Amino acid sequence: MVGTNSGSTSAHFPGSGDEFDAIDRLRARFERAAGARMAGGRPPRGETWIGDDAAVVRGPGGELELLSTDLVVAGVHVDLGLGGFDDLGYKALMVTVSDLAAMGGRPDHGLVSIASPPGTDLDLVADGMAMAAVETGCVVVGGDLSGSPVLVVSVAVSGSLSGSPHLGPLLRSGAKPGDQLLVTGALGGSAAGLRLLRQRKDEGATTPPSAEESSLIRAHRRPRARLDEGEVARLSGARAAIDISDGLVADIRHLARASGVGIDLAEVPVAPGAIREEALGGGEDYELLLATGDTVRLQDGFARAGLRPPIVIGHCTDDPARLLLGGGPLPPGGWRHQVR
Amino acid sequence: MVGTNSGSTSAHFPGSGDEFDAIDRLRARFERAAGARMAGGRPPRGETWIGDDAAVVRGPGGELELLSTDLVVAGVHVDLGLGGFDDLGYKALMVTVSDLAAMGGRPDHGLVSIASPPGTDLDLVADGMAMAAVETGCVVVGGDLSGSPVLVVSVAVSGSLSGSPHLGPLLRSGAKPGDQLLVTGALGGSAAGLRLLRQRKDEGATTPPSAEESSLIRAHRRPRARLDEGEVARLSGARAAIDISDGLVADIRHLARASGVGIDLAEVPVAPGAIREEALGGGEDYELLLATGDTVRLQDGFARAGLRPPIVIGHCTDDPARLLLGGGPLPPGGWRHQVR
Repeated sequence: MVGTNSGSTSAHFPGSGDEFDAIDRLRARFERAAGARMAGGRPPRGETWIGDDAAVVRGPGGELELLSTDLVVAGVHVDLGLGGFDDLGYKALMVTVSDLAAMGGRPDHGLVSIASPPGTDLDLVADGMAMAAVETGCVVVGGDLSGSPVLVVSVAVSGSLSGSPHLGPLLRSGAKPGDQLLVTGALGGSAAGLRLLRQRKDEGATTPPSAEESSLIRAHRRPRARLDEGEVARLSGARAAIDISDGLVADIRHLARASGVGIDLAEVPVAPGAIREEALGGGEDYELLLATGDTVRLQDGFARAGLRPPIVIGHCTDDPARLLLGGGPLPPGGWRHQVR
Repeated sequence: MVGTNSGSTSAHFPGSGDEFDAIDRLRARFERAAGARMAGGRPPRGETWIGDDAAVVRGPGGELELLSTDLVVAGVHVDLGLGGFDDLGYKALMVTVSDLAAMGGRPDHGLVSIASPPGTDLDLVADGMAMAAVETGCVVVGGDLSGSPVLVVSVAVSGSLSGSPHLGPLLRSGAKPGDQLLVTGALGGSAAGLRLLRQRKDEGATTPPSAEESSLIRAHRRPRARLDEGEVARLSGARAAIDISDGLVADIRHLARASGVGIDLAEVPVAPGAIREEALGGGEDYELLLATGDTVRLQDGFARAGLRPPIVIGHCTDDPARLLLGGGPLPPGGWRHQVR
């Protein structure tokens, strides 16, 4: 997730940006603790623990289960001056579900933890969560509440994979040299929406936003997990996926690193009203980045499911050291929103 | 959990103390959101959602799965002046696992979310979590990190039930009039340990604590989920259980309310070095409160498993309005530690 505070850290355990060190150290500790259950220092065959959008484990019945959690901290991930408690609740659940979309799975059950200061409208937080739960088919079955000096919401979800039990999840690590890279939609809308909200607040805007502006604001406040797209991609032979939460340039690095491939991007589709920098680094669009060796099959799957066609943005190469955009070097890191 | 701050709220969704209203409202929202998956407004047969120590759902393979989450907020649940970051991490994972012990289950997988301010020793937090994970057989498979003005740790765990698939979990709602009530150990140790830590800090104590004092301090800093006890109770015919997190008088009310029974308690076993009030209301001991119609079978099960014998403290009656202790009325609510 993108911080609204430049001094903040936000790192999903799979690792994003500057926090690799802390995550690697934590990962080492938890893997050591799990030692007895690990064959040769690795999770059992078919399982993936820390290191992807969601963990892949065997559930009580032996079937594959997906598990993921995300944190939303008021003032770090979400500026409550620019959106409501319901937007925060909605986003907290939706971005966690997005991790499952990136695996080609769907959510089954959710747990919600809310640590909140006095004055927090818990009903509104829950309203937003409940709406995201309905939209994604996630059933919230439990949670915990606490007082806190700052509003922190943590959501954990479990999920599953449709289709043949032999068809595993989409991992970050599955891309191969020569694979085409595609995104499920234009990028930068969320960052542009945040920019607009800040502008309108600074200007004390009283006129209603235009249709295009409303669409960008909605992209920021109410992102949508691409569950259909992830599932169809998985069932249509895609080899790797990641959700674009930290920004394309950051997330494509994660995929390249996990897959051990290089990247050659032509250009990226920019959402109407957004600028190129927002599309490259803004993050929080939650579109999926996909790698496939059979683009025709993927596009055909999307068409048959009635989904917007995925957009080819480049391909994977065999030199992991070469990350290119438009023939030049891929810009470094993720672009982060500056603290006000 | 017991707040160190009297102005704090801490409420597991099943409901504890003053927060019933907020929880009931949230529960209603999430149940409404799940409407399509609920038969006649209730979860599917065999499942329990919000309303017990852990949720009971069907996993991807159709087997019963347990899900629970708990929050630990520095300054609310844990005073970092009286313990280390490792104690906080340990406790955050252990108390979540304790919810599964209260169902008669065991943990399989854990997700950890840490929102932390600068200066937090994340390695120590993870060390404590990893130790609790090893002790309970819980494998940490993922998580999320974020910056935050205050340290908030949220742990979510999934778990399962051993034995026959027809033998369901221990619920709060299973007790019947005439059932004996037992606890798995003496109470008040954690509250007494907290009291000692505060005294020693106020006095600037430099002498090492006595063996008894060390035991109480350990009960506070490093509580233990009674996984063996919960599982043996479940396999030995116990009808209901709850973990004693909020304090006996608060938690026994939850069990009585869920089961629709009255309570007649003789007296409670007080941990050496603790006082009666701490045993009745201190909380955070994480011993289990059990109800059974066959005490001999339960005691026999504990003996065969090499566990300390559970202690009979009273029985259930058929008048839900009568909650008695030593012949008089059960004291109200949970006793809460006062803010310093």
